[in-house]
Amino acid sequence: MASHPIATLDASLIPRLPASSPTLFEAKKQKNLSFEAIAKELGRDEVAIAALFYGQAMASTEDIKKLSQILEIPHETLETQLAGFPDRGRTMEMPPKEPLIYRLFEVIQNYGYAYKAVLNEKFGDGIMSAISFSTKIEKETDEKGEWAVITLRGKWLPYSRF
Amino acid sequence: MASHPIATLDASLIPRLPASSPTLFEAKKQKNLSFEAIAKELGRDEVAIAALFYGQAMASTEDIKKLSQILEIPHETLETQLAGFPDRGRTMEMPPKEPLIYRLFEVIQNYGYAYKAVLNEKFGDGIMSAISFSTKIEKETDEKGEWAVITLRGKWLPYSRF
Amino acid sequence: MASHPIATLDASLIPRLPASSPTLFEAKKQKNLSFEAIAKELGRDEVAIAALFYGQAMASTEDIKKLSQILEIPHETLETQLAGFPDRGRTMEMPPKEPLIYRLFEVIQNYGYAYKAVLNEKFGDGIMSAISFSTKIEKETDEKGEWAVITLRGKWLPYSRF
Amino acid sequence: MASHPIATLDASLIPRLPASSPTLFEAKKQKNLSFEAIAKELGRDEVAIAALFYGQAMASTEDIKKLSQILEIPHETLETQLAGFPDRGRTMEMPPKEPLIYRLFEVIQNYGYAYKAVLNEKFGDGIMSAISFSTKIEKETDEKGEWAVITLRGKWLPYSRF
Amino acid sequence: MASHPIATLDASLIPRLPASSPTLFEAKKQKNLSFEAIAKELGRDEVAIAALFYGQAMASTEDIKKLSQILEIPHETLETQLAGFPDRGRTMEMPPKEPLIYRLFEVIQNYGYAYKAVLNEKFGDGIMSAISFSTKIEKETDEKGEWAVITLRGKWLPYSRF
Amino acid sequence: MASHPIATLDASLIPRLPASSPTLFEAKKQKNLSFEAIAKELGRDEVAIAALFYGQAMASTEDIKKLSQILEIPHETLETQLAGFPDRGRTMEMPPKEPLIYRLFEVIQNYGYAYKAVLNEKFGDGIMSAISFSTKIEKETDEKGEWAVITLRGKWLPYSRF
Amino acid sequence: MASHPIATLDASLIPRLPASSPTLFEAKKQKNLSFEAIAKELGRDEVAIAALFYGQAMASTEDIKKLSQILEIPHETLETQLAGFPDRGRTMEMPPKEPLIYRLFEVIQNYGYAYKAVLNEKFGDGIMSAISFSTKIEKETDEKGEWAVITLRGKWLPYSRF
Amino acid sequence: MASHPIATLDASLIPRLPASSPTLFEAKKQKNLSFEAIAKELGRDEVAIAALFYGQAMASTEDIKKLSQILEIPHETLETQLAGFPDRGRTMEMPPKEPLIYRLFEVIQNYGYAYKAVLNEKFGDGIMSAISFSTKIEKETDEKGEWAVITLRGKWLPYSRF
Amino acid sequence: MASHPIATLDASLIPRLPASSPTLFEAKKQKNLSFEAIAKELGRDEVAIAALFYGQAMASTEDIKKLSQILEIPHETLETQLAGFPDRGRTMEMPPKEPLIYRLFEVIQNYGYAYKAVLNEKFGDGIMSAISFSTKIEKETDEKGEWAVITLRGKWLPYSRF
Amino acid sequence: MASHPIATLDASLIPRLPASSPTLFEAKKQKNLSFEAIAKELGRDEVAIAALFYGQAMASTEDIKKLSQILEIPHETLETQLAGFPDRGRTMEMPPKEPLIYRLFEVIQNYGYAYKAVLNEKFGDGIMSAISFSTKIEKETDEKGEWAVITLRGKWLPYSRF
Repeated sequence: MASHPIATLDASLIPRLPASSPTLFEAKKQKNLSFEAIAKELGRDEVAIAALFYGQAMASTEDIKKLSQILEIPHETLETQLAGFPDRGRTMEMPPKEPLIYRLFEVIQNYGYAYKAVLNEKFGDGIMSAISFSTKIEKETDEKGEWAVITLRGKWLPYSRF
Repeated sequence: MASHPIATLDASLIPRLPASSPTLFEAKKQKNLSFEAIAKELGRDEVAIAALFYGQAMASTEDIKKLSQILEIPHETLETQLAGFPDRGRTMEMPPKEPLIYRLFEVIQNYGYAYKAVLNEKFGDGIMSAISFSTKIEKETDEKGEWAVITLRGKWLPYSRF
Repeated sequence: MASHPIATLDASLIPRLPASSPTLFEAKKQKNLSFEAIAKELGRDEVAIAALFYGQAMASTEDIKKLSQILEIPHETLETQLAGFPDRGRTMEMPPKEPLIYRLFEVIQNYGYAYKAVLNEKFGDGIMSAISFSTKIEKETDEKGEWAVITLRGKWLPYSRF
Repeated sequence: MASHPIATLDASLIPRLPASSPTLFEAKKQKNLSFEAIAKELGRDEVAIAALFYGQAMASTEDIKKLSQILEIPHETLETQLAGFPDRGRTMEMPPKEPLIYRLFEVIQNYGYAYKAVLNEKFGDGIMSAISFSTKIEKETDEKGEWAVITLRGKWLPYSRF
Repeated sequence: MASHPIATLDASLIPRLPASSPTLFEAKKQKNLSFEAIAKELGRDEVAIAALFYGQAMASTEDIKKLSQILEIPHETLETQLAGFPDRGRTMEMPPKEPLIYRLFEVIQNYGYAYKAVLNEKFGDGIMSAISFSTKIEKETDEKGEWAVITLRGKWLPYSRF
Repeated sequence: MASHPIATLDASLIPRLPASSPTLFEAKKQKNLSFEAIAKELGRDEVAIAALFYGQAMASTEDIKKLSQILEIPHETLETQLAGFPDRGRTMEMPPKEPLIYRLFEVIQNYGYAYKAVLNEKFGDGIMSAISFSTKIEKETDEKGEWAVITLRGKWLPYSRF
Repeated sequence: MASHPIATLDASLIPRLPASSPTLFEAKKQKNLSFEAIAKELGRDEVAIAALFYGQAMASTEDIKKLSQILEIPHETLETQLAGFPDRGRTMEMPPKEPLIYRLFEVIQNYGYAYKAVLNEKFGDGIMSAISFSTKIEKETDEKGEWAVITLRGKWLPYSRF
Repeated sequence: MASHPIATLDASLIPRLPASSPTLFEAKKQKNLSFEAIAKELGRDEVAIAALFYGQAMASTEDIKKLSQILEIPHETLETQLAGFPDRGRTMEMPPKEPLIYRLFEVIQNYGYAYKAVLNEKFGDGIMSAISFSTKIEKETDEKGEWAVITLRGKWLPYSRF
Repeated sequence: MASHPIATLDASLIPRLPASSPTLFEAKKQKNLSFEAIAKELGRDEVAIAALFYGQAMASTEDIKKLSQILEIPHETLETQLAGFPDRGRTMEMPPKEPLIYRLFEVIQNYGYAYKAVLNEKFGDGIMSAISFSTKIEKETDEKGEWAVITLRGKWLPYSRF
Repeated sequence: MASHPIATLDASLIPRLPASSPTLFEAKKQKNLSFEAIAKELGRDEVAIAALFYGQAMASTEDIKKLSQILEIPHETLETQLAGFPDRGRTMEMPPKEPLIYRLFEVIQNYGYAYKAVLNEKFGDGIMSAISFSTKIEKETDEKGEWAVITLRGKWLPYSRF
C-alpha cells in the first residue's frame, strides 16, 4: 500500500463540501497520511474516516481531539468546522461520472432487483438499513491479480404492520 | 428462510424485461422454489440466478438444461428465450424508487467518494471491475437482530498508461 | 364521511400497478366500501389498506382471506395476485402532479431542513425510519372548518459508528 | 435532549439561502441554543423557528425583536435581513439526497396515493392546505427505543365548483 | 364562434386520461357540441366543463345526469366512468410542448416573481389558492384584432403562524 | 395595502438577474416604496414594474429617467444597467418551487388542455400571444375573505396557412 | 428528386401521433407520392403538408377533400381523423436524437443568442412569431455539391408596454 | 435600425462565456456600435459576428486586428482572449427560456420531422450540415407589419455506405 | 468466433424499433447467422449490417434483395418494411444503461475534451463527421488476452466562414 | 499541423477542473506548444496528454518532472497540483453541447447496439474495457479531403460466472 500516493481533494469539489473538508484534506496531504493510518489512530474503519473527510460521517468529540493531534490542526478550528450534523449525499450528482464510482452504481443498477428478490426470500418484507450499517474494503491477491472486496453490512428492518 | 414467501414478478415490470423473465418467474411460482433452491441445483450463487431471471445474467447451455428440468419448462422454449446476450441495466429507472434498492443506491451516493479514496490508496489509479465480478448475500443474526451482509468482489483494473 | 363517494382507480394508473390493484379496486367499487370500512374488518389502519390496494404494502395470509370474503373475490385469485413482495414506489413520478399529493411533497420541500435540524437536536445523528413506521389520518373540525391531520411515526435509527 | 449537539449551518448551503440564514445560525452557534430553546422564547413551534432560520418562514416584527435580544444580533441587521417575504422551497434539490429528508420524501412517494384516497373518502374532492398549516415533532420512547412523531395539520380546501 | 370547428380528443392523449375522456369526447363529436353549449346546459363555466372532459374536474350527480342526456351516453356508463375523484395533473409533461399551452407556461416563467412580489405587497405572506379557485376565458375584439382574456380568481390564503 | 411590508430581493437570486436588479431593489427598500407606488409614477402597471425590476421587461428612456428620480439612483448608473434588451425567463427553474408561483404553474398544468380546447373553439387554430400581452392583479374582498384576481390579456394569433 | 425514395412513417412513432398520421402515410406509400407532389395539388408548401401528415398543422375542409381524392382515402375517414385542432409538439423528445433534426437544434443552441442580439438590434424588443409564420426548403447546387436552404419567415411581434 | 438600442451583455451570462465576451461587449457598448456596423467592417455577416461575441465562432487573425481597431481594444488583449478554438454550445440550457430563442426552438420541435421528411425526399439519406453552414437575418416590411426572415444554408452530407 | 452464440433481439426493445427489426432478427436467429456472415454476403461491414438491423442504417435496393435471399424473408415484406429513411438514434436512452455501451459512452465523457483539443490542433476549427463516416471492429489477441479495437473514421469538416 | 493554432483553455470550464488545468494550459499557451509536441517529450500519446491537462489522466512522477521542464512550471507547483488521483468525468454535462464532441456521442447513440451485437458475436458476453484501454487520433488525406481516424483499443473482459 505504501507504494501508492495518498488521496487528496479535487479543488472543484470544494463548493459541494462543508468547511471541514479542505481543512482536513490539506493537513492529510501535508502529513502524507493514508486513511488507513489515520483510521488506525482513531480506532475506526478507513472508509468511515474517508466519509468523515468528505462530510458524510459525524465526528465524535474524541475523534476531533485525535484528528487535531494527528493532523496538527488547531483543536478549536476542527471543533468549529465539525460541529453540527452532517448534511449527507451532496458530494456528487447521480448517475456518478467518475468511472470508479460508476462501477459501484452499475452494480446496483444491474443487480438491484436480484438483491431485492434474494433479500426478500431470506428475510421477508423489509430493507437492509443504510444507517444501522457499516462497510469495509479488503484487498485479495491471487494468481489472476488483485481483487477489491467491499462488504456492506446493515441491520434488517422489517416493514411495520399497521 | 422457509418461513418467507418466495419472490415473484410484478406484472408492471414485464415490459422492461426479456421474454424469458415471465416464463421463469411463472414456473418458479408454480414450483414454489426459492432462488437459493434453484441456485443449489445449478451450482451457482442465488444472486446470479435472480439476476438471470431478471435478464441481467447469461445462462449457459447447461444452465438452460437444468432450469428446464427443475422448473418443468419445455427445453426449447427456454433455449429460444434465453438465446442471445443479456441487454442489461434496464429493469429500473435511477434513482431507484423501491425502498430496499434505494438504500443500496444511497450507500453509493453517500460513500462513493470515500470508497474511491480508500480504493485508490490501497490499489492505485484504477477501478474495481463490475464485470470480472461476483457478489453474494449472507445473513447474520446476533442479539440485536438480523443483519444482511452483501459482498462485492471485483478484479482491480489499473488505468493503462499510453 | 358517508356523504363522500368512495375512491376508485384511475384507469391510466393501471400500467404502473401490480395485477392485484384493478382486482381490488373493482371489487371495492362494486361493494361500495370505503377504506375505513375495509380496514375495520382487517383490524388495520385505512392508510395501510389503501397502500395495499395500490401495491405499496404487503398482505398477510389473514388479510388475503378477509379481503376475499369482504370483497367477494375468489380466494385463489387474490392469493395469486398478492403473492410475492411489493415493488414499492412506482405509482407516480416525482415531483407529483396531483395537487393533493403535491401539497405533501411541498411540505417536505419547504420544511425538510427544518425537520432535519429539529430531529437532530432532539435525537442526535440519525434518521426517522420509513420502514419501522406507521401513519394515520384524522379529521378535526372547528369553527374555521375541517382540518386534516396526518401523523407519521417512525423508529429513530442512529447512525452506526464504525 | 441536552445531550445532543445543536444544529448548525453547512457552509455549502449558504448560496441557496437568504442573507439572514448565516447570521442567525452563526449567532445560535455562539449562544449554543437549540431551536426548542429559541422557540420557547418566541412562543412559537421549534419547527417553525428552524424554518425561519432556513428562510422558509416569515418573521413578525415581534419575532425580530426577540431574536435580536436572544441571539444578540443588532436589531437593525436582523430587521434588514429579514425584511421582505420568504422565497420558499429552494434549500434543496428534489429528490432530496440527505438520508433523513429522503425518508420523509419516500413516505410521500410510497403512500401518496393512499393518502389521497383516504383523504378523498373522508373529506371529498379537495386538498389539505400546506399554507393554512402547522407541523410539529414529538419524541416517544418505549421498550423498543425512541420514536419520532411528525404531525402535519392543514385546513381542508374543497375544490370550487364553477 | 359557430364558424370554428369543435375541439376533439387527440388519440395519442388517451393513455394519459381516465376512461371517461374518450367516452365524453366521442359523444361531443357526434353531437357536434361546443364546450360553451354543454356548459350552458349544466350551468357551469365552459373551462370547467373542458377540464371535466379531460379528467381534471369532478362531476356532480346532477352533472352526470345532464351530460348523459345532452350527449346521449347511457347514464350508467357515465356514472361508472365518472365515479371516484379526479387524478389531476397528468395530461401533459411540463414544460408543455403545445405552443398554445406553452405561451401560458411562459407567462408564469417570465412574470412569476413579479406576480409574487405584487401579490405579497397587496395581500401579505401567503398564496392565491388554485383549489378555492375559478377561471374563465373571454373574447374581446378591437381595431387591432381579437384578444383572449383569461381570468384567474383564487382565494387568498395567508401562511399560518405556528 | 399599507399594512403589508414591501417586497425585497432575496440575495440568493442575484446571480440569476441582471446588474440592474439589486440596484433597483436596494433603492426601493431604502425608499420603502411599493410597486404600486412606483408604477403610478411611471404610468405603468405594477406587475410590469415588478417584471422590470426582475429584468423581465424593458425600460424606456422615460422610465429610466423617472426611476432615477423616484429612487434617487444616479441616472447614468441606471441608464447603463438598463441598456440592452432583457434576457427573459431565467429567474427560476421550472417547475417553480416557490409555493405562490407553483400554484400558478399548477393552474396551467391542470387546466392547460381545457384552456386550449375552449380557446380553439372560440378563436380557431392559433395561440394567445404572451408578447402582445398585458396582465394585472386585482384584489376583491367578500364575506369569505380576500380574493386575488389575475387577468391575462393577449392578442389572438391564428396560424398562418402556407 | 425522382431518384430518391419517398418518406414513410416509422412504426415506433405512431403512439405519439394522431390517428390521421398512419392513415395518410400509408396511402402516400401506396400511391408513391412525394410531399412535393401532394403539396402542388393542394396549393400549399411541401413542409406544411409534411407537418400536416405528422399532425402538426391543420387541414382545411378543402385540404381534406383534395387529400381524400389524391390519396384515395374515404372522405369520411379523413374528415373524422382530421377534425379538431392539432395537438402540436409531441412528435419527439428534445434534444432530438435524429441526426438530421439534431443539426437544426444545434443551430439554435449555438446561434440562439446571436440571433436574439441581431434581431433585437434590427427590430427592437420582441420576438419573431412561430405562429404567424411560414417556412420552406430549397435545394441549391454548385461545384462543391448540394446545399439545403431552409427559410423561416415570421411576423415580428414587439412586446406590449403596459 | 438606428432607432433601436444596441445589444449588450447580461451580466448573469458571463460565467457561461469565454473571457473575450465581456471584453468585446463592453467595448461595443462604449462605441455604441451595432453588429451590423461591426460586421460591415470585417466583411462578415452580422450573425457570425454576434456568434463570435458570444464565443460561438472563431476569429481569424485579420478579424482580431480589425476588431481591435474598431473597438479600441488593445490588440494583445484580444489576441490572448480569442486564441484557441471556440467551446461552443454552452451559452444556454435547452429548452431555451428566452421567449425569442424559444420560438426558434419551437419551430424545430414542431416542424422537425416535416423538415426531415422533405429533406430526405429532396436529397436522400443524409443531413444538412450545421458546420459547412451559414445563416443570415433579413427584415421585410409589408402592410401587415415587419417580418423577420432567417435563412439557414448548409451543405448536404449523404450517409456513407460501408 | 464460431464458439459464441449469435446476437438476437431483446423483446423489450421492439417498441423503440421499426417494423423491419423483429423481422430481420427473427430470420437471423432461424438461420443462425452472425452479422459477419451476413455482411460478407452483402459486401458491407458487419457493424453497418447490425446498424441496419436496428434501424440505424439504410438498405439499398440491392441490400434488400440479398437480405431477402440469405434470410429467406419474402422480398415484398422486406421491401415494405425497409422503405423510407431511417429514423435514427432512438434505440436507447442516454446515458446508456447497458454496461458494454456505457463503456463507450464513458470514453466520450472522459476523453471528449482531449479529443477536441487534439483534433483542433491537427485539423483546425471543425468537426469529424458522423455522417460521412465509417466504423469497424477488430479483434486482437496477445499474451494478456483479447483486445477489441474500434475504429471511427470521419471526414473532417471545417466551419464555414461567413 | 503547424498551420493550426494550439488548443487553449476556455475560462468558463475552469470551475469544473482541478487546479492543475489552468496552470498547465497557461504554460502551454506561453510556450505555444501543441499536445503532439509535449507528448513526444514524455513518450506518451497526445490524447493521453490532453486528457492529463483536463484532469482526466494521472501523471507519473516522471511525467511531472518533464512537464515541469518543458513548460517551465516550478516542479513543486506541479507536484502539488497533480498529486492525488484524477476525479474523472466531470468536464462536461452529457449530452455534450460542443458540436465536435456531440458527433462522437452521436456515434455511440446511433451505433451503440450495433457495436454491442458485433462485439458479443466476436467475443462473447462481456465488455470492452475503458480502463485497460488506449486511444489515438490519426489524420488521413485523400482526394476527397481530410479524414480523422480515432482508434479505441480496450481489453475484452468476459462476465464472471458465479
